[in-house]
Amino acid sequence: MKRREIVKVLGLGVAAAGLAACTEEKKEVADCKPAAPQPAAPAVATKPETIEWKMVTTWPKNFPGLGTGANYLADLIGQMTGGRIHVKVYGAKELVGALEIFDAVSRGTAEMGHGASYYWKGKSRAAQFFAAVPFGLTAQEMNSWLYHGGGMELWEEVYGEFGLIPGAAGNTGVQMGGWFNREINSVDDLKGLKMRIPGLGGEVLKRAGGTPVLLPGGEIFPSLQSGAIDATEWVGPYNDLAFGLHKAAKYYYYPGWHEPGTTLECFMNKEAFEKLPEDLQVIVRNAIRVANQDMLADFTAKNNRALEQLVNEEGVELRPFPDDVLKQIRTLSDEVVTEEAAKDSMTQKVFDSFVKFREQAIKWHAVSEQAYLNARTL
Amino acid sequence: MKRREIVKVLGLGVAAAGLAACTEEKKEVADCKPAAPQPAAPAVATKPETIEWKMVTTWPKNFPGLGTGANYLADLIGQMTGGRIHVKVYGAKELVGALEIFDAVSRGTAEMGHGASYYWKGKSRAAQFFAAVPFGLTAQEMNSWLYHGGGMELWEEVYGEFGLIPGAAGNTGVQMGGWFNREINSVDDLKGLKMRIPGLGGEVLKRAGGTPVLLPGGEIFPSLQSGAIDATEWVGPYNDLAFGLHKAAKYYYYPGWHEPGTTLECFMNKEAFEKLPEDLQVIVRNAIRVANQDMLADFTAKNNRALEQLVNEEGVELRPFPDDVLKQIRTLSDEVVTEEAAKDSMTQKVFDSFVKFREQAIKWHAVSEQAYLNARTL
Repeated sequence: MKRREIVKVLGLGVAAAGLAACTEEKKEVADCKPAAPQPAAPAVATKPETIEWKMVTTWPKNFPGLGTGANYLADLIGQMTGGRIHVKVYGAKELVGALEIFDAVSRGTAEMGHGASYYWKGKSRAAQFFAAVPFGLTAQEMNSWLYHGGGMELWEEVYGEFGLIPGAAGNTGVQMGGWFNREINSVDDLKGLKMRIPGLGGEVLKRAGGTPVLLPGGEIFPSLQSGAIDATEWVGPYNDLAFGLHKAAKYYYYPGWHEPGTTLECFMNKEAFEKLPEDLQVIVRNAIRVANQDMLADFTAKNNRALEQLVNEEGVELRPFPDDVLKQIRTLSDEVVTEEAAKDSMTQKVFDSFVKFREQAIKWHAVSEQAYLNARTL
Repeated sequence: MKRREIVKVLGLGVAAAGLAACTEEKKEVADCKPAAPQPAAPAVATKPETIEWKMVTTWPKNFPGLGTGANYLADLIGQMTGGRIHVKVYGAKELVGALEIFDAVSRGTAEMGHGASYYWKGKSRAAQFFAAVPFGLTAQEMNSWLYHGGGMELWEEVYGEFGLIPGAAGNTGVQMGGWFNREINSVDDLKGLKMRIPGLGGEVLKRAGGTPVLLPGGEIFPSLQSGAIDATEWVGPYNDLAFGLHKAAKYYYYPGWHEPGTTLECFMNKEAFEKLPEDLQVIVRNAIRVANQDMLADFTAKNNRALEQLVNEEGVELRPFPDDVLKQIRTLSDEVVTEEAAKDSMTQKVFDSFVKFREQAIKWHAVSEQAYLNARTL
C-alpha cells in the first residue's frame, strides 16, 4: 500500500513534468519553424521531446493488482526515462473495448496494450501458452521459460505476425480454484455445472461434463447471485474479495489447477517501439520486466490477508479439491492441451517447448521448491 | 546460454561505447580548460559525461550464475542509461578481497558491491535476514517481503548506518541440502559431522552436534576430497557441478532447508548514488530489480539439466532428508534464529517483520504454490 502511494506521488510528478516538457517543446518547435539546421543552437534545443504513448488495457481503470499494475508500469516508464516518454493509461472501454486492445495496438491506435495473452486465442491459438495453461507452469517457472528457456523468442514470433512486441508484465501466482455452491467430492459433481471459466480451463470443464460460461468480470457477481451460473473462478482472495464473490457462494476451492501462474502481458506496436532511441527501447523492455516481478510480489503479500478476512470474518468455507478429482482433471487437461496444440504448427511448436520445459521444471522443483514447502509444514 | 551471448555482445558494445564516450569527453574537457561558461556551445557539448563506476564482488570473476549475474547487471545499467553510466566489474581480490567489499563501498573505494548480506553479520547481525534464513522464505516470498512487506525499508535502515543503499540483485531459489559421504538417516548422523556450512545454518548444525566449518568456495573441493571436512553445502546443481563436488562425495541431499531462497545483493555508496541525476537513480534501482528476477529465472532453467547430468552421468545418489530429520532441524532452526534475533534491537525488529510475513506466506502458499505443486505430481 505504501508502495502504491509512493508510485502515485512520483507518477503524478513525472506526468506533470512530462506534460510541462511537452508544452515547452511544442512552443519551441513552433517558434523555430521551418526546422532549419541550427549550427550554434542553444543547449536547451537538445532537450529531447516528450514522446506521448497510450496504453490501452483490458482492466477496469485502477482495478486492484491488474489495473494498478498497468499504472505502475506507465509511471515507471515515465520515471526511468526522466519524462522522455509519457504513457497515458486507458481503462477498458475508455478508448477501445477490453477485447479490442490487441487490434488497436496492432494498427497503431495505441502504442501499448496491457492484458493477458489467452484473450487472443481467436488471433493465434498459440497465444494461450504465454498466459496460463491448466497444470502448466508456476510464476517462477513461467519467468524461467520466458527469459531463459526460449519462451520469449516464441512469443515474439507469434506476436510479430501482428506487428506487436510482447512482454511479460505481471503474474498473479497460483490462482484459486473458484467459488461453488455445491461440494466437489468427485469429478461427477462437475457434471452439469455451469461455471464461469474461460480458455483451456473451460475446455477441461466441458470434457468433465460441465458447461463453461464466458462472462466479463463485472457480470460474474450478479450471474452467480441470480443462479444464472452455479460456480465461478476469478483470480485469488485479493481480487475475489473486492468483487464480493463470497456473498454469492459458500465454498472456496483450491488450488487453481487451471491458472497456476498466470502471466499478464504488455505488448507494444512494433513500429512505434522501433522509432524509439536505443536507450529508451532498453528502458521500456526492462520497465516491463520490473512490473512483471512487482505484481507477483504484490499479490503474494496481499492474498493471505484477504483470505483470512474471507474465512474468519465472512464465514467462507475453504476446501481443497480432493486428490482424486485433481488427478482426473489433470488427465483431462493434458488431453485438451495436447489436442489444442495439434491444431496448427505454430501452436505445436510453442507446446513442444512449453511441455519440455515443464518436464524439467517438475523434476527440479520436486527436489527444491516443492520439497522445501512440504518440509516447512511437516 | 543464448541470453548470455546476447548480453555479452551488447555488453561489449556498451562498454566500448562508454569508453569511447569517456575518452571523447575527457579530450573535450581538456581542450576547453578552463571550463568557462559556453553561452552558445555546440549541441555536442550538452552530451552528458560518462559516469565511471566500479562494482566490487564477492565472486570469482564470471562465476556461473552469481558472477555472471553481476556482469549482467553492470551491462544492463550501461544499456539502460545509454552509456551515461559505465560500471566496471571486479572479481574477488581484483580490487579488494571478497569479504572486504562492504567496507570498500562504504568508504567509497567503489560505488557498488555485489554479494550476499549474510556475509556482513559482523557489521550488523540483522543483515543475515536479507539473504537466507533456515526454514525462512522462498524466492517469491523474499521478493514479496522486500518489495511489498516492509523488508526493503528495514534493509535500507540497516545498511543506511554504513552509508550504503541495498538492493536485491538475484536469487538462487531453494538450494540443495549438500554433499555427504555418509547417509543421514537421523539427526544423530549429524553428530560429529564436520561440514562446510556458513551462517545461521551452521549454527543449527552446531546445535545438532555437528561442527560447522567456514571455507571460501575455492577451498571446498580439496577439503572434501582430503577428508578435512565430511560434508559441504554450496548452491545447487548448476554451481555444484561446476565445482566438481560430485567427485568428492556420494550423496546429494535435498532440500536446502538452510537456504530456501537466497537473495543476492547489490549495494551502493549512498553519496555516489545521490549525486546521480534523478532518472539515473531510478534506472539503477530498477536495473537491480531486473537482475534480481533474471538470476532466479537463470538458475531455475539450468539446475535441472545439471541435476540430470549429476544423477545420470556421474552416478550421484540423490536423497531426500528424512521427514523426521527435517522436523527436528526445523525446531532447532527456530530456536537458533529466535535467539540470534534477541541479541540486539535492530535484529529483533527485522526478525519480527520477517516472522510475521513468513506466517502469512506459509498460510497463503499452503493453498496456492504448495497445493498446486503437490497436485501436479499426485
